[in-house]
Amino acid sequence: MKIVCMKSDLQNSVNISFRAVSSKTTMPILECIEITVTDNFIKFTSNDMEIGIETIVKGEIIETGDVAINAKLLSDIIRKLPDSEVCIETDLNYTVTITSGKSKFSIPAKISDEFPSLPEVEKTDALVLSQFSLKELVRQTVFSISDSENNKIMTGELFEVNDNKLRVVSLDGHRISVRRIELKNPFRNIKVIVPGKTLNEISKILSGEMDSEVRIYFTDKHIIFEFDDTMVLSRLIEGEYYKVDQMLIRDYETKVTVNKKEFLDSIDRATLLVKESEKKPIIISIRDNEMGMEMVSNLGSMNESIDIEKEGSDLMIGFNPKFLMDALRVIDEEEISLYMMNPKAPCFIKDKEESYIYLILPVNFNSTARQ
Amino acid sequence: MKIVCMKSDLQNSVNISFRAVSSKTTMPILECIEITVTDNFIKFTSNDMEIGIETIVKGEIIETGDVAINAKLLSDIIRKLPDSEVCIETDLNYTVTITSGKSKFSIPAKISDEFPSLPEVEKTDALVLSQFSLKELVRQTVFSISDSENNKIMTGELFEVNDNKLRVVSLDGHRISVRRIELKNPFRNIKVIVPGKTLNEISKILSGEMDSEVRIYFTDKHIIFEFDDTMVLSRLIEGEYYKVDQMLIRDYETKVTVNKKEFLDSIDRATLLVKESEKKPIIISIRDNEMGMEMVSNLGSMNESIDIEKEGSDLMIGFNPKFLMDALRVIDEEEISLYMMNPKAPCFIKDKEESYIYLILPVNFNSTARQ
Repeated sequence: MKIVCMKSDLQNSVNISFRAVSSKTTMPILECIEITVTDNFIKFTSNDMEIGIETIVKGEIIETGDVAINAKLLSDIIRKLPDSEVCIETDLNYTVTITSGKSKFSIPAKISDEFPSLPEVEKTDALVLSQFSLKELVRQTVFSISDSENNKIMTGELFEVNDNKLRVVSLDGHRISVRRIELKNPFRNIKVIVPGKTLNEISKILSGEMDSEVRIYFTDKHIIFEFDDTMVLSRLIEGEYYKVDQMLIRDYETKVTVNKKEFLDSIDRATLLVKESEKKPIIISIRDNEMGMEMVSNLGSMNESIDIEKEGSDLMIGFNPKFLMDALRVIDEEEISLYMMNPKAPCFIKDKEESYIYLILPVNFNSTARQ
Repeated sequence: MKIVCMKSDLQNSVNISFRAVSSKTTMPILECIEITVTDNFIKFTSNDMEIGIETIVKGEIIETGDVAINAKLLSDIIRKLPDSEVCIETDLNYTVTITSGKSKFSIPAKISDEFPSLPEVEKTDALVLSQFSLKELVRQTVFSISDSENNKIMTGELFEVNDNKLRVVSLDGHRISVRRIELKNPFRNIKVIVPGKTLNEISKILSGEMDSEVRIYFTDKHIIFEFDDTMVLSRLIEGEYYKVDQMLIRDYETKVTVNKKEFLDSIDRATLLVKESEKKPIIISIRDNEMGMEMVSNLGSMNESIDIEKEGSDLMIGFNPKFLMDALRVIDEEEISLYMMNPKAPCFIKDKEESYIYLILPVNFNSTARQ
């Protein structure tokens, strides 16, 4: 096998492949990137048994063949080579020589036969999104998946298609995030749970451009994302997702409209007083035209008030400040509305069209104990 | 005590004070910044018993007094406040109220009587440098102090004045760094050992501007740096510094002139193959017009050659790549010269005027074992 590529092209492809390289594994072959060179293309494959990535590399094919190379070492070497042509060549002993200018690396490689090939999956019709939309959908929901493996379903996100609407949902038992977008073309109904890890990794590869598209294919057990010269294949999480609709209540007693940045900055300041291990609520007192924010901890106390528009009753309610901040950080609107019922019922942050809904459960606080 | 300052001024002063706040201490008072307000000034003092810092804060004095506030909490609060006026006020119970706009923090503080005052030191004549020069001198030498407390003297740097020359020296048993600059005015002869920690902290506060000056005062036990509105006082390290001059040999058998960046990049690439715990030398083969670089480790091997100008004999010599890189990184010149005697004698990297000298000891390598 022998190829000649520009350093920048190699680096780009290695970075993409890296997202599906196992970092913790007892199988050294999974720490490798497989390079496959045929008469027609140069392909990098990586596979951590959850996610698999194939990406086509620009370059000159001098000799076909294949080999598996430790991904970290390959990445380190390519990153540090000068910005010019790089030649990668294998010999009969599976030693890989990487040459650029007067610099030459020799590293041991592995026979690619050991490398676990990606499952063959039949691709039928594709759901098409812009890279921008997919990246945004993930950013705006993935923070509220659960990171505990105790409940596998909560570690994924629901991708649900109804006609021309795609809805993405995540929840962790304390909060629910929902984003909804319209598709350009109607698509068959779909309801799958995509691992949060897959979505996080995909996000890091997507360019996020409006003009570039992602084609998404669904099978019983897999989801495939195709974009640019790259294909990402992931297992789906098996099982039935939570019935979210019945949790999304539309009644409210109190509606507050507030400047998002002021609200976020204020909560951010309050969290100064909370050590990481502590769980201290921020207590919000909603009155006419004004919302009081209060935090009391062992370190001290904070009091602050923000101008608001209020509809309905006054209310005092406590929240885990992190949950509020997580949601506020991913909302792009300058003004947001909160809908609440009482101090024990969930709070909804959402826009009129419900293109986003963030449900956050309040926390108990003892208002007399704070005195 | 009551003062009103701009957030940015407070933040700047807290950042400076922070450099002398103890991070590991059993005395909570040393985690504080002392605020002293007199009729004439607002002063922040910090003191970790090695270094003490006093800095004058811009602001309006409303009521005199003093208090000690936990530095981290004060810093966190000020950083997150909006960019406007901030009022800091104490009450009779030593509760500090920090107010900005509609935001109000209340935190407990300490009586400043507990705060260890800085030693009174008589300042006589000052050695004057630009902030730029001092910052550069430190950057270019401080990397080769020893971080082991086993040999206290090696944890400091020699500051030596002879007439109108200031020489700064650091060494750790494997290498010596020497920088020398000319002073605008002659100064009395000085030979003191300044703790490396002091120099590192000072570096972080110095603006590094050519036009701003630093006045340095020396006493038997202390060194004082005065610049802008800040005074940094540090203990000196007691003892006799190493006799460096007899180690700085001027004979050589081989002189190599090489492009610094090419040389540095090449060593940097070679270190890819070395894991942190390993000690693998880079082996340099000096021939006419060409310098071969070789690294062999368990991960693989690297070979590379760089164009050089050579004077004298051919030579094969091994180095700890880190030591070479540390020196090369702080040299600003595009071309550098190496002076060597044999594979067991130190290598010198220096300019003609000896404004800088970097001595690096070679390491043994077994050239047959590498085959």
